[in-house]
Amino acid sequence: MSIAIITDFGTEDNYTGIMKGVMLKINPKLQFVDITHSSPPGNIKVAAFRLFTAYKHFPKSTIFLAVVDPGVGSSRLPIIVKTKDYCFVGPDNGVFSWIYENEKCKVYKTPIPKNVSNTFHGRDIFAPAAAKLSKGVKIEKLGAPINKWVKFNIPVAKIEKGKIYGEVIDIDRFGNLITNLTSKELKGTRKTEIKINKHTIIGLEECYKGTRPIAIFGSSGFLEISLPNGNCAKKLGIKVGEKVTTTIQKNE
Amino acid sequence: MSIAIITDFGTEDNYTGIMKGVMLKINPKLQFVDITHSSPPGNIKVAAFRLFTAYKHFPKSTIFLAVVDPGVGSSRLPIIVKTKDYCFVGPDNGVFSWIYENEKCKVYKTPIPKNVSNTFHGRDIFAPAAAKLSKGVKIEKLGAPINKWVKFNIPVAKIEKGKIYGEVIDIDRFGNLITNLTSKELKGTRKTEIKINKHTIIGLEECYKGTRPIAIFGSSGFLEISLPNGNCAKKLGIKVGEKVTTTIQKNE
Amino acid sequence: MSIAIITDFGTEDNYTGIMKGVMLKINPKLQFVDITHSSPPGNIKVAAFRLFTAYKHFPKSTIFLAVVDPGVGSSRLPIIVKTKDYCFVGPDNGVFSWIYENEKCKVYKTPIPKNVSNTFHGRDIFAPAAAKLSKGVKIEKLGAPINKWVKFNIPVAKIEKGKIYGEVIDIDRFGNLITNLTSKELKGTRKTEIKINKHTIIGLEECYKGTRPIAIFGSSGFLEISLPNGNCAKKLGIKVGEKVTTTIQKNE
Repeated sequence: MSIAIITDFGTEDNYTGIMKGVMLKINPKLQFVDITHSSPPGNIKVAAFRLFTAYKHFPKSTIFLAVVDPGVGSSRLPIIVKTKDYCFVGPDNGVFSWIYENEKCKVYKTPIPKNVSNTFHGRDIFAPAAAKLSKGVKIEKLGAPINKWVKFNIPVAKIEKGKIYGEVIDIDRFGNLITNLTSKELKGTRKTEIKINKHTIIGLEECYKGTRPIAIFGSSGFLEISLPNGNCAKKLGIKVGEKVTTTIQKNE
Repeated sequence: MSIAIITDFGTEDNYTGIMKGVMLKINPKLQFVDITHSSPPGNIKVAAFRLFTAYKHFPKSTIFLAVVDPGVGSSRLPIIVKTKDYCFVGPDNGVFSWIYENEKCKVYKTPIPKNVSNTFHGRDIFAPAAAKLSKGVKIEKLGAPINKWVKFNIPVAKIEKGKIYGEVIDIDRFGNLITNLTSKELKGTRKTEIKINKHTIIGLEECYKGTRPIAIFGSSGFLEISLPNGNCAKKLGIKVGEKVTTTIQKNE
Repeated sequence: MSIAIITDFGTEDNYTGIMKGVMLKINPKLQFVDITHSSPPGNIKVAAFRLFTAYKHFPKSTIFLAVVDPGVGSSRLPIIVKTKDYCFVGPDNGVFSWIYENEKCKVYKTPIPKNVSNTFHGRDIFAPAAAKLSKGVKIEKLGAPINKWVKFNIPVAKIEKGKIYGEVIDIDRFGNLITNLTSKELKGTRKTEIKINKHTIIGLEECYKGTRPIAIFGSSGFLEISLPNGNCAKKLGIKVGEKVTTTIQKNE
């Protein structure tokens, strides 16, 4: 049984190791997969997106533990989200927003015991819940169903007067600018002209080539702006949130 | 059977992977947990502290492999430390100081074979010893008991004339300043006034809130100075070793 | 069964986690070992070297997955390399050059299915192939033997007129400069005088000591230039590729 983990704990400290120790105490046969621990500190949206583009690639019954939790110790609830194939454990702060958007979900709140730390619910609440689920404990024993939960607006690209208005929603290690433009918005487009910052990129490429920024569909179906053999984000000086405007020239 | 590993090898090189390969050759059924590999290079005290705040969360019989070893190849001994529940393998350079302080320990030295590398005892001595322990080899077969070992002074906060003198002993990814002040020193204090650098923090918080540095008990029982939604260490320009002075106002 | 993975994906994104999910779908009993994911982006030579110095330490039958693949989506082939004890899966771009140099190899090309991503063959081709091998699927079912493959020239140190001309081929986290000089070239040398940049290092050390750069044989048999308790690469301002000239004074 696998528990796949995404956090913003980084890899310098012992926080992730501690959570794994806690889970092994409950279920010694667990297998852990690190999705990433270097999601930007406190950035719920980026973590939510990285969880979203990863989860479908895991085997059914995988339990996902998502601890990007700037509101730890406040009144935000710990929750468990059940979909057809998976369970997700983490804080009710929107980190599962992309899951809610794409799956039929049941959401349960889990109690906060009195004697736990106010700064590390990952260790004291989320990890134990995930480990118990992995041992077959029923969700109903761990929490009570709720009807409302926190979901941020998924940043969908907008089509208006022949233009698509999108944005950069993540930047990866290679400096690829991952936008929220998908084949859905670009469908039937003969030729795209993408403006980002002061730069214009004409047409879509099928693979990384050349020495200038290109537009290419990334592995999760989102349009990416990339610099072959270079770091596009650094080269163009672009950060998450940057606007991307695309002119559509339809096939006739 | 789990082996939990802490090193200062970083994640760029193949050193940790090599140690795991070596251990799997000896015991193919091992499960590894990375505590961290990004402890500051050569910094024994920080690694010792991160091992200390992690170890109790692991299942009994976990073997800990600690390789922060600036004296590799010198006359420092390789050792195995046995406590009631755990075994620790690593260099005799103080990296187990917090364990000695908190557990009843038996310490064994293991021999340095002639044909091993002078620069990577992690691969050639510590990893094999840990893997053999995991297979049930008796410590007595791996080493001989010793009566003296290296232990640095645990940085305990001092109370003097109504003040507590402490220091920052670790800084985590979020920029939280982890001090050596615990509830023991602060017991019965009505109101705390903490001075660090040029800054004064009044009172303790129960959770991260506000936009100014706060004092809050961290998940391992040490007082932390944190900047909610920000990096306190960067904001205040503070490093490990910085002094923290606390004025005590007792309940009457 | 273990799959040992080396990539340049970094640890910030979810790419490695996704590959592991894909492999667990195919073989839920897999055990993963990360060699490193922080090989310099797109740098095939450094990854090839780090794979080389690691692989022999793994148990027989380990499968190595190497995804440093700047040419993903181009005409470069996906390949599987079979040696006596191991299998290697990755792109045909030279990443296995050191393996070819040191092992008798059979090389197979695997097909690129039509519907896969052009930017993430790690997920869509290499990881599935590695997982299938781990389940006992025969290589012949996964690919066809080929007679030519990409191999870069292994940077062997050259001896000429009493001097050895070498270079820095990797730099590790500690700032150790790993050169391509081995005991083979230095055999019988009474006293070495190593010039790198403007610096001269006289003699070889047996362990890290002193406060000046030293020369010492590293754990993989390559001569390293190191600064005990410091970062030699930063101190001397040296990068991979820097030339290293050694004057030989033979024993008489």
